[in-house]
Amino acid sequence: MVHSVRIVGAGLIGTSIALALSAKKIAVELVDVDPVGLALACDLVGCVAVSEPELIIFATPLKALSEVIEEQYHLNPNSTFMDVCSVKTEPVLKVKASSLPLNSFVGTHPMAGREVGGAESARGDLFLSRSWIITPTPESDPSAVALVKDLISELGATVIEMDAAEHDAAVARVSHLPQIASSLLAAQLHNIPDKWLELAGAGLRDTTRIAASDEKLWKEIIHSNADEIRELLINLQNDLSEMIESLPDQEAIAAIIANGRQGRAKIPGKHGGKAREYTYLPIVIDDKPGQLGAIFNECAAMSVNVEDLAIEHSPGQLNALITLALSDDDAIKLSNHLSSIGWNVHPIRK
Amino acid sequence: MVHSVRIVGAGLIGTSIALALSAKKIAVELVDVDPVGLALACDLVGCVAVSEPELIIFATPLKALSEVIEEQYHLNPNSTFMDVCSVKTEPVLKVKASSLPLNSFVGTHPMAGREVGGAESARGDLFLSRSWIITPTPESDPSAVALVKDLISELGATVIEMDAAEHDAAVARVSHLPQIASSLLAAQLHNIPDKWLELAGAGLRDTTRIAASDEKLWKEIIHSNADEIRELLINLQNDLSEMIESLPDQEAIAAIIANGRQGRAKIPGKHGGKAREYTYLPIVIDDKPGQLGAIFNECAAMSVNVEDLAIEHSPGQLNALITLALSDDDAIKLSNHLSSIGWNVHPIRK
Repeated sequence: MVHSVRIVGAGLIGTSIALALSAKKIAVELVDVDPVGLALACDLVGCVAVSEPELIIFATPLKALSEVIEEQYHLNPNSTFMDVCSVKTEPVLKVKASSLPLNSFVGTHPMAGREVGGAESARGDLFLSRSWIITPTPESDPSAVALVKDLISELGATVIEMDAAEHDAAVARVSHLPQIASSLLAAQLHNIPDKWLELAGAGLRDTTRIAASDEKLWKEIIHSNADEIRELLINLQNDLSEMIESLPDQEAIAAIIANGRQGRAKIPGKHGGKAREYTYLPIVIDDKPGQLGAIFNECAAMSVNVEDLAIEHSPGQLNALITLALSDDDAIKLSNHLSSIGWNVHPIRK
Repeated sequence: MVHSVRIVGAGLIGTSIALALSAKKIAVELVDVDPVGLALACDLVGCVAVSEPELIIFATPLKALSEVIEEQYHLNPNSTFMDVCSVKTEPVLKVKASSLPLNSFVGTHPMAGREVGGAESARGDLFLSRSWIITPTPESDPSAVALVKDLISELGATVIEMDAAEHDAAVARVSHLPQIASSLLAAQLHNIPDKWLELAGAGLRDTTRIAASDEKLWKEIIHSNADEIRELLINLQNDLSEMIESLPDQEAIAAIIANGRQGRAKIPGKHGGKAREYTYLPIVIDDKPGQLGAIFNECAAMSVNVEDLAIEHSPGQLNALITLALSDDDAIKLSNHLSSIGWNVHPIRK
């Protein structure tokens, strides 16, 4: 179990870690170059000074990492060190270029909400039931890895271990490429008349949702993982060219859309299980308080578990279409039940 | 008010129209080249034979349109005619190439659920509170346009009028381009290890949701609107090339991500109003029946209106993160209330 921690960087991640540790009576010190942010964080956390921390966590932007590595290593050469950056190859390169020996360092990446920022958004429960990737190197001391795993367990997260290159390849595909695709798609909406945009349905909204993300965060992530991302963007570009060439040929178009459908089906369902084909139950509700609660009460009364859900609104209307993703059995049970008590249930879709 | 209708094509749209009209005691005849599908549809609807229909609705795939136009016009030269295809320029070209005079024809496109198919999925309430675009030509008789508007109003939908070229340009941008982008993105998920896919979060799921759509429907839509789509795909290709070139430059990356964020912000909020910046309230719940109902009951008790919502599951965990999109005032009110009664509410995000 970890006893004393210093966190460098009092942003969302650093302050959230500090809050969680502080609540568990683990000694935690927060430091930051910004005295205003640090004061707020320390008010929230109730920080102490830790003279010889067992574990030092780098929770700064990537660009500040080299400097804090050097500074912290010289202050505490016997500590264990970890970072929490969204890319994992580049921090290792920075450690290699520093005085800090690689055996005392373990790279990590908590898969926690990233649209938020700043100490004011910090919460001690930010990491509860989240994945937290660790990317030890062959040089990492087993005791350093064990200490980092302890820390992550204390925070309520689940450790997933892989090497740094694998991490960067994986997140390039499941996180960075979707972000870029969504941003590029949303950028096409400039210079479109408002009247056209009012025809937008759930499809456009879903595909562009993450385009709302903050460019200050993403410029660093994308830049740091550029080698992995470049290859994927070139693949996408080739597929896009093939789509353009296929426009005159219905069967070629069908093959591309089918290929996407099969790719989509590979995304696993919740609980890390196999991908599941949910049954979708659409229900038209009045768009006013109480309707959703009433539906979910019926779900609970029937012991029906809602796997996912979406709300769609028609422009100019005061109705909403809610679509519940359910198991096959639950969908039939709930559809029959809701219909029998007068809800406006639409036909089940697979 | 419309008194008698013939519908050619007993699929989802045709049968749904028939069900709604039949319930209103309007005489409706369904015809279809497939006797099995037609028999099912007529069992559902209770069809009659209509010898001289006021209105004939073409609800066939686009590829069958030329033939049914010719056949139906010769049977009923005094009727008014409309179609329900997802593209609107090509049906006009087919009418122009036929014996049917353009003044008797009005193109239309109901913005109703398209993932479903077949008479067995039909519902009389499919069009309730949906938009239904009509694209009359300058030649369309005002009486023909009025009759089509009557029909749409009878079905509970809202008429939106634009010309066919404008329709095709609009749906290319708000519907067809997002579909293609989502399909191409999802196609990149082939040959990815399962372990990597288990890191997928809400971002990947949202951006690829519509990639699950049916290629049989989409090959025809994309092919028929190829001219509009080609231009948009070339724009996207140029922007993608710019992204690849920008990878070495953080500020150039930031400009692209910011451009997407600004494009995303142009999508209007519900009820056709201005785009709204919702406040997002994340809540960690146990993933079991009853939790969602309990939350929405609290929303109703506090008169809080949920504008949108999402559920995210961590792999291997039995918790779920639900995010509610709310007005600023409602978010503060609900966050304080839920926290005070012991819910695991995370900090508000803008």
